Amino acid sequence: MPGLASETIGIWVAAGSRDESTETAGSTHFLEHMLFKGTPTKDAKTIAAAFDRTGGDSNAITAKELTCYYSRCLVTDLSDITSLLVDMVSNSNLDAEEFERERGVIIEELAMSADDPGDVLFDDFDELIFGDHPLARPVGATKDQIRVLGHHTLLDHHSTTYVPPRLVIAAAGGATHEEVLGMVDDALAQAGVGSQAGSHTWDSPAATAGGVPGRGAREVPTFHSGRSHTVKDTEQLGILLGCEGLEEGHPDRFVYSVLLTMLGGGMSSRLFQSVREERGLAYAVNCVASQFTDFGTFGIYAGCTPENGQAVVDLALAEWDRLAQEVPSRTELDAIVSQLSGSMILGLESSAARMNRLARSEIFGIPLESPLDLIERVRSVTAEQVSTMAGDLMGRPKSLSLVGPQADVVLR
Amino acid sequence: MPGLASETIGIWVAAGSRDESTETAGSTHFLEHMLFKGTPTKDAKTIAAAFDRTGGDSNAITAKELTCYYSRCLVTDLSDITSLLVDMVSNSNLDAEEFERERGVIIEELAMSADDPGDVLFDDFDELIFGDHPLARPVGATKDQIRVLGHHTLLDHHSTTYVPPRLVIAAAGGATHEEVLGMVDDALAQAGVGSQAGSHTWDSPAATAGGVPGRGAREVPTFHSGRSHTVKDTEQLGILLGCEGLEEGHPDRFVYSVLLTMLGGGMSSRLFQSVREERGLAYAVNCVASQFTDFGTFGIYAGCTPENGQAVVDLALAEWDRLAQEVPSRTELDAIVSQLSGSMILGLESSAARMNRLARSEIFGIPLESPLDLIERVRSVTAEQVSTMAGDLMGRPKSLSLVGPQADVVLR
Repeated sequence: MPGLASETIGIWVAAGSRDESTETAGSTHFLEHMLFKGTPTKDAKTIAAAFDRTGGDSNAITAKELTCYYSRCLVTDLSDITSLLVDMVSNSNLDAEEFERERGVIIEELAMSADDPGDVLFDDFDELIFGDHPLARPVGATKDQIRVLGHHTLLDHHSTTYVPPRLVIAAAGGATHEEVLGMVDDALAQAGVGSQAGSHTWDSPAATAGGVPGRGAREVPTFHSGRSHTVKDTEQLGILLGCEGLEEGHPDRFVYSVLLTMLGGGMSSRLFQSVREERGLAYAVNCVASQFTDFGTFGIYAGCTPENGQAVVDLALAEWDRLAQEVPSRTELDAIVSQLSGSMILGLESSAARMNRLARSEIFGIPLESPLDLIERVRSVTAEQVSTMAGDLMGRPKSLSLVGPQADVVLR
Repeated sequence: MPGLASETIGIWVAAGSRDESTETAGSTHFLEHMLFKGTPTKDAKTIAAAFDRTGGDSNAITAKELTCYYSRCLVTDLSDITSLLVDMVSNSNLDAEEFERERGVIIEELAMSADDPGDVLFDDFDELIFGDHPLARPVGATKDQIRVLGHHTLLDHHSTTYVPPRLVIAAAGGATHEEVLGMVDDALAQAGVGSQAGSHTWDSPAATAGGVPGRGAREVPTFHSGRSHTVKDTEQLGILLGCEGLEEGHPDRFVYSVLLTMLGGGMSSRLFQSVREERGLAYAVNCVASQFTDFGTFGIYAGCTPENGQAVVDLALAEWDRLAQEVPSRTELDAIVSQLSGSMILGLESSAARMNRLARSEIFGIPLESPLDLIERVRSVTAEQVSTMAGDLMGRPKSLSLVGPQADVVLR
């Protein structure tokens, strides 16, 4: 991104909570916290200060299949930040005393999430649909699991998963490819952990088919249909209904994008117009999708007064079904193509978004296409394909999760 | 921002919930919703579709002293978006039937906010410290107030506040100043509402001393000390404690920035290190500040297990006091200066952040300084000034708001 003063760099680990067993639940997220706790040459406060002094946005995130340590900083700080991130990932002390203290922080984080009705709803839905598959567990596990998690579990986790080829470094921003490679080489040498296994630029489509090998236990999940309701003393009822969707990199992903956007992707979407604009039944209503290596979920989210819950569920299903029954007009399709194209081009201005895209492409083995090619792929989607896919999804078993006051809301 | 494919444009109204009386409470935010509901030439769905088809980020926000309608879009869509925004602000139908339907949506929005413990906490704190001043009311008012709000109130509000000189258009991005002026002129002509009262570029410091005239009722608030506790069945106790701070544009604002950052502005800040890193008592702990024309609030926020509440409050006060008692080291000050400088330069890459800065400068009458000048101002802050300000603040009456389970947590 020539001319940009900033760069976003991320070190990715192709490992997430899905790779845990019931015994090691929560260890991936706990490990993410521990990496900020010190290396032989830097204590926790030094690490925090080194990130903060750049004025950038530095943090880490753990998901079900991925962990990422990242920083958006000025290019002039990139060398220091790269060394810091590589040192953290390679040489973390994983100190036992720090581990005990951090247990409290993680329990607080889980409590904060338990107080967020939206977080609870999305966790409940996954628990419902994934049965006893590891994807059913919340990323951070439960407070009880964190209370008993052993220090040795983290050490094992680190030594087995924080190794090539599961480690991917991605960067986007004002630095040149060669500059980034030089900084990474220097950082690896400083950290004493060998050299890069390979590298490529964004325009050389070197993503391996199948992505990073050795990821996760490859037990493919199956969708469980059902209904869950976590009773909470809230004003709104949170609603999430859905079915099995498309996995990451599915060949029909462009049709899927159009469908998600047309049904519930903006203020002109069918759900927004029908539920909020025409009837005033909800403030938030939209489509959601999770994508994993071998599985995806398709869903509709809404929050509303409990008395309106059944009406919102019925309307959501009716709009979904209408898309399946009637092929949308060319005009509506063109508007969605325009929306997705504009959004892609606007996204190119964010070094963080581009860094993310590079890493996901590498990890999941999805060829990295140029923006113009992507727009071409969206343009080639037909209205019939969108309608057919809506029908396919509609024919699948569904689940419904609710969080909030008691309510007789069901899928019917 | 030459070379950028995008532009962020905002139409600002120097009016917010502060300008309401008890009878008209909620009308500013309601009006913001109604502007999306149609003009003589565009119905609500057409407006929504016109924003969505750009793929950009378009929305509106109402605050206590400001309302803003904005869009980040491609420069190629800017002319259409400018016309749309100008038409919405100037010629809204404010249809009575749409008004009734939107009442339900707003009540849902308030219910959603009531389910967010953080939102409740910040609203409670303002209610506590502002007494019967209009700043005490939540921006959207209460559900009961929305249920009885009259349609004529919105019409009055629109005709008295959506007029020059309270209207400011600000833009930042890839379009040139002349291009933006041309688009705004065309949009005003199309909307049949006269022409621009004046314009200037970011590097000509034309902000009027005192800012946009005619803003708000000029009754200066006074700080009320006290304690509030909204009992909620949550796992965490939300804590917000604070005192009167500095208003928007205060001459000592650079000292204030250093203080806020040093005490609670990042993972290396004193509060984060003391409360989270050294003791593991909270996940989130940081400083917060609200700034209005004639008043500001300084606060410390934390969320923790109720049993740890008193310890967290005591530690927060102790860290605040330590900053007042001991002048910080040159090293610590330098790190904060570096952090603030880096953050400013990184912020320059966001057209949205720059548009915001331009508008606030104009509305509040704060001279717009170049980034280098701003960095120079931060560099000139001394450690003594920071410590003295911490002491000044510490000497002021304080308040404490809590949201969560019953707990004997007090300021002491």
